[in-house]
Amino acid sequence: MASYSAKEIAEMLKGTLKGDDSRVISGVSSLKDANESQVSFLGNKKYHHQLAPSKAGVVLLSKDVENEELPNDKTYIVCDNVDLAFSQVIGLFAPPSVEYPRNIHPTAAVDPEAVIGKNVHVGANAVIEKGAVIGDDTCICAGAYIGHNVKIGCGTLIYPNVTILARCTVGNKCILHSGAVIGADGFGFMPGPQGIVKIPQTGIVQIDDDVEIGANTTIDRARFGKTWIKSNVKIDNLVVVAHNVVINESSMMIAQSGIAGSSELGRGVIIAAQAGINGHIQIGDGAKVAGTSGVAKSLPPGAIAIGTPAETQREFMARLSLPSRFEKLKKQVDELKQKVESLLK
Amino acid sequence: MASYSAKEIAEMLKGTLKGDDSRVISGVSSLKDANESQVSFLGNKKYHHQLAPSKAGVVLLSKDVENEELPNDKTYIVCDNVDLAFSQVIGLFAPPSVEYPRNIHPTAAVDPEAVIGKNVHVGANAVIEKGAVIGDDTCICAGAYIGHNVKIGCGTLIYPNVTILARCTVGNKCILHSGAVIGADGFGFMPGPQGIVKIPQTGIVQIDDDVEIGANTTIDRARFGKTWIKSNVKIDNLVVVAHNVVINESSMMIAQSGIAGSSELGRGVIIAAQAGINGHIQIGDGAKVAGTSGVAKSLPPGAIAIGTPAETQREFMARLSLPSRFEKLKKQVDELKQKVESLLK
Amino acid sequence: MASYSAKEIAEMLKGTLKGDDSRVISGVSSLKDANESQVSFLGNKKYHHQLAPSKAGVVLLSKDVENEELPNDKTYIVCDNVDLAFSQVIGLFAPPSVEYPRNIHPTAAVDPEAVIGKNVHVGANAVIEKGAVIGDDTCICAGAYIGHNVKIGCGTLIYPNVTILARCTVGNKCILHSGAVIGADGFGFMPGPQGIVKIPQTGIVQIDDDVEIGANTTIDRARFGKTWIKSNVKIDNLVVVAHNVVINESSMMIAQSGIAGSSELGRGVIIAAQAGINGHIQIGDGAKVAGTSGVAKSLPPGAIAIGTPAETQREFMARLSLPSRFEKLKKQVDELKQKVESLLK
Repeated sequence: MASYSAKEIAEMLKGTLKGDDSRVISGVSSLKDANESQVSFLGNKKYHHQLAPSKAGVVLLSKDVENEELPNDKTYIVCDNVDLAFSQVIGLFAPPSVEYPRNIHPTAAVDPEAVIGKNVHVGANAVIEKGAVIGDDTCICAGAYIGHNVKIGCGTLIYPNVTILARCTVGNKCILHSGAVIGADGFGFMPGPQGIVKIPQTGIVQIDDDVEIGANTTIDRARFGKTWIKSNVKIDNLVVVAHNVVINESSMMIAQSGIAGSSELGRGVIIAAQAGINGHIQIGDGAKVAGTSGVAKSLPPGAIAIGTPAETQREFMARLSLPSRFEKLKKQVDELKQKVESLLK
Repeated sequence: MASYSAKEIAEMLKGTLKGDDSRVISGVSSLKDANESQVSFLGNKKYHHQLAPSKAGVVLLSKDVENEELPNDKTYIVCDNVDLAFSQVIGLFAPPSVEYPRNIHPTAAVDPEAVIGKNVHVGANAVIEKGAVIGDDTCICAGAYIGHNVKIGCGTLIYPNVTILARCTVGNKCILHSGAVIGADGFGFMPGPQGIVKIPQTGIVQIDDDVEIGANTTIDRARFGKTWIKSNVKIDNLVVVAHNVVINESSMMIAQSGIAGSSELGRGVIIAAQAGINGHIQIGDGAKVAGTSGVAKSLPPGAIAIGTPAETQREFMARLSLPSRFEKLKKQVDELKQKVESLLK
Repeated sequence: MASYSAKEIAEMLKGTLKGDDSRVISGVSSLKDANESQVSFLGNKKYHHQLAPSKAGVVLLSKDVENEELPNDKTYIVCDNVDLAFSQVIGLFAPPSVEYPRNIHPTAAVDPEAVIGKNVHVGANAVIEKGAVIGDDTCICAGAYIGHNVKIGCGTLIYPNVTILARCTVGNKCILHSGAVIGADGFGFMPGPQGIVKIPQTGIVQIDDDVEIGANTTIDRARFGKTWIKSNVKIDNLVVVAHNVVINESSMMIAQSGIAGSSELGRGVIIAAQAGINGHIQIGDGAKVAGTSGVAKSLPPGAIAIGTPAETQREFMARLSLPSRFEKLKKQVDELKQKVESLLK
C-alpha cells in the first residue's frame, strides 16, 4: 500500500503545513473513523467539534478554520480549496481504476455494419446494432446495448447494462452509468374512437459533451425533433427526463427528481432530490429547486423554489410557522373575548 | 428526405386549408423552432401569442383557434382533432422504424424446451428459459431475459434489457420498455423469533393486452395469486407497482408514481407523476390524482385528489391561501385590540 | 395440484380447528376472491365485515378475531401468528421454485482469473470479470454483471440483469433483484476553474449478510471508504442509497425512498415509500419515517416523523387541522367585531 509523509502531501497540495511534517500516512478517512496513519479534512467551522476527538494523523483545513483552536496532537495542512485538495489525496491512495482491454470481446455481438473507432473497448455480451458509430477511445462495457444508427463520440464511458436506443446520439467524454435507458418512447397517448391511442415518438435523444447520466435514469426520445441534454449537464440516479425536454449547460438534476414533457431548464440550474418539474414550463438560468418540491409554473432566472406547489423561501417559512402563529393569535382572541364580555356586562 | 405540398397534407388530414396551398414542407417542428419548410401546430388559444413570431410554413389549427387573428405569412390547415392530425404529419416525416429480423440471433440463449411462435425476433444475447412460450410476431430484443414458464402473447414488443421473471404472463400487442422488471418478489417481511423473516412471494404478474410499461418500471409478483395489469393500461417510466395490486382497464400511471400492496385502481384512473397510493385501498373509476400527491385513503369514482395527505381541490386551495388569510385576520384582531383597549381606558 | 383436508392444515399449523375438519382445500386466496376449495385469512378485526360475504372454505383467524361472531358456513383455524401461518399455507400450494442448474452456462463470459465456488450457477450471458470471487451455492443469474474483484459470499441469489461494479462486496444469503445497480459512482462534483469538476469516487459498496435489495434500486460507491449496508437490511424497489451512507442492522427502506450522501440510519429504522432523507444526518435506532416525508434534520431514536419538512405526528395533525380551526377563529373574530362595534356606538 502506498504511503507518504505529511511533508510530501503538503508539497503536493501546495498547502501550508502546521506541526510534525514527518508523520507517515497510508490512507484517507472521515474525521470520525480515521486513525493515526490516515489523513482527513475539515472544510467548515461548523464541524470544528469533530476535530478534538478525531484520531486522524493529518487533517486538511480550509482557511476559515485555520485560526480556530487546533488540538496539537495532529498535523495540519491549510489549503486554498480543501475539497479539491482532499480529492487529490484520495487519488493518491485510490486503488487503480479498472482497465478495459481495447478490443471487442468474443461474446459481444457487433453488427458488421456498425463502425467502431480506434482503441475502443466492447465488453462481454455487449450488443452494437447495424449503423451504430462508436468514436475513438470509447468504452462500451459488458452487457450494454447500442441501438441502430446510434452515434457515440470519443472518450465516452458506457457502463455495463446501459441501453441506448435507435438513432440517439451521445457526445465526447460522457459517462453513462449502469441501467440508464436513453431513448425509450416518450409517454404520449390520446383518446381515440376505440380507446387510448399511442402517439408515435419519432424523435431522438441528443446528449452533448461531458455529460454524466446516473444509474437507472431514463431519458425519453422526443415526440419529434429531440430531447436535448447539453454539455456539462450532470444527472444523478433514477431521474426521469421526459420527451422534448431541453436541459441547458451545466445544470444538475439530483436523484429521483423528474421533469415532464417539453419543459426547459436554463444553464446552471439545480433540481434537488425527488423534486418534480411540471411539463411545458421554463426554469430560468441559475434557479435552484429544493428537494421534494413540486414546481407547477415557470421560474425566473436565479429563483429559489421550495415546497409543493413551489414557493419562495420566505413564503415557505411563513407557511411553516403558521401553526405556532395561529396558537398565539387564538390566545389573543380569547383574551379579547373576555375583555369584551366584561365590557358588555 | 420526403416532402409534400400544403395541399397534399391538407388532403391527407381532411382539413380545411387557408392560404398558399403550394408551400413545400419537408419536416415538423414546434412553433418556436420551425422554419419555412416545416409544419407546426397550435392546439390551444392559450399559445396564440407563439403564432406571430413563428417561422413555420404551415400550421395545423384546432377549430377554436380558427377564428382568432391569423398572421398571413403562413398557410393554415384547420383540423377536427389537431393532436391526431399532427401525429399523422409526424408520421409522414418520421425515419423508418427499426426492422427486427424475424429469427433467433446466434448469440441468444433459447432453452430447447421454450416454445417460439412464427415470425418471432430474438435479439443478440437475449435469454429465454425453459418452458417459456412466445407468441407469433413478437419481438424479444437484445439482452432481454424471459424467465421459466413465462407466457408472452402475439405482436408484443419487448425492448432490450427487459427482465420478465418466472411464470409471469404478458398479453398481445403490449410494449415493454428497456429496463422494466416484471415479477421481482413483492416486498414482504415479518418479525420472526430470530429477526426479520421473508414472506414467500409465490404469485405472478399477469399483464393483459395492449398494455405499455415504461423504462425501468418495476411490477412485483403477488404474494399469492396475481398482480394484475388489465388491458389498455399505460404505465410510464420508473413507476413502482407492488404485489397484489390490480389496475383496471385504461388507467394510467405517470413517471415515478407508485402504488403499494393490494390496492386497486378502477378503470380510466390517472395517477400523475411522483404521486403515491397507499396499500390496501381502492381508487374509484375515473379518479384523478395530481402529481406528487400522497393518497392515504380510498377515493370514490371520479374523485380529484391533490396534496399529501390528498384532499379535494377546494380543500387544497383553502390550505394554500391560508397564509394570506391569516395575515388579514391578524390585522383585524390587532385593530379590535386597539378598539377594546380604548373602551377599557 | 396438491390438496389437503382442513384437519391436515390445522395440524401442520398447530392451530385450533372450529367447524367441519373434512373440507378439502387446493389453494389460497384473499377473502374477497376465495372459493369453497380455498383457504384465506383474517388477521385483524377491522376486516371482520369481509368474512360473511366470503366464499372461502377455510379461514385462518388470529386470536383477537376468535371471539367475534363467525358465520357457520366456513371452517376456522385459530393461529398464534396468522401471518406466519398463512405464509406456511401459501407454501403448501406454491409452484416449485425455479431450479438453477449448478454449472456455468456456455454463453456466460467468466474471466479465467475469476474464482468460482462449488455448486454455483452462472446463467446464460452473465459476465464475471477478472478477480471476482463467487462463494459456494451462490446463483449468478442470466445477464448479471459481476465486476472486477467483486466478492460475493455463499448462498446468495443474484437475479437476472443485476449489475455489481468493481471491488464491491456482497455477503452470504443475500438476494439482489433484477436491475439493481451496486457501486455506480456517487454523485459528486465541485466548481472548478473551467466549470464543473468530477470528484473521484474511489470507495466501494459493502453489503453484509441476509440483505435483500429491490429491483432497479441503486446503491452508489463511496467517495472513499465504503457505503455500508449491514446485515438483515431490506430495501425495496427503485430506492436510491447515495455514497458513504451507512444503514445499520435490520432497517428497511420502502419503494422509491432515498437517502442522500453520508447519512446514517440506525438499527431497525423504517423509511416508508417515497420518503427522502437529507445528506449528513443521523436517523436514530427504531425511528419511523412516514411515506412521502422529507427529513431535513437528524432524528432521535424511536422518533416518528411525517411531512415535509418532517414533524412529529402531533405537529403534523395540528397543521392538517389548521384550515378548519382557522374558519372557527375567523367566525369568533367576526362576532367580536360586531360586539365591539355595538359598544363603540
